[in-house]
Amino acid sequence: MSSLISESAGGATESPAHPATDEIELAGVLQALSDPMRLRIVVALAGEAELSCKSIDLPVVKSTCTHHFRVLREAGVIRQRQEGTSRLNSLRRADLDARFPGLLESVLGALRDS
Amino acid sequence: MSSLISESAGGATESPAHPATDEIELAGVLQALSDPMRLRIVVALAGEAELSCKSIDLPVVKSTCTHHFRVLREAGVIRQRQEGTSRLNSLRRADLDARFPGLLESVLGALRDS
Repeated sequence: MSSLISESAGGATESPAHPATDEIELAGVLQALSDPMRLRIVVALAGEAELSCKSIDLPVVKSTCTHHFRVLREAGVIRQRQEGTSRLNSLRRADLDARFPGLLESVLGALRDS
Repeated sequence: MSSLISESAGGATESPAHPATDEIELAGVLQALSDPMRLRIVVALAGEAELSCKSIDLPVVKSTCTHHFRVLREAGVIRQRQEGTSRLNSLRRADLDARFPGLLESVLGALRDS
């Protein structure tokens, strides 16, 4: 059992729902990563601890961007937390590495090489 | 440039189209792998050199099975070749390893552990 679900419940506003580490499904992660925009988000987050939605430069409208972040969060790829009016995003690297060793690194490696 | 497209053109019947190694896209591979039935197919093929569609036991109708094999072939995950009335399938392990080092192994590892 993981305690990651309600990690930021003490924040000022509501925290979005996240799957616990042991609830992260391989097919769901692969599905979440199977989109070029979402891969760009993952690459951006791999280089930073936390980024807001608007600080990641994507050629899509805000609602599409919000959708991509939600898909990544619901699959367990990223964590989102509310800080004031900003939603901050981070990669769940340790959780993904624990669940599927080597998967995230191979995806990031493939993106670096391309 | 890869010469893998028309590898089995000398067979008795037409060979289905395959992407060349350098045409295999990461997002497409992840999309192809993001389905539990297709992951089962990949696991079955990982243990064998070649398998016919009907020798892989899947709880789906034949047309759905054919669809899953086509998705995997078009993404570059498997190779299909016609031999008489059978379509034989194999994993493009070397091509995938060359294109995205470690990716297939991490997916197979995650499936073995689950």
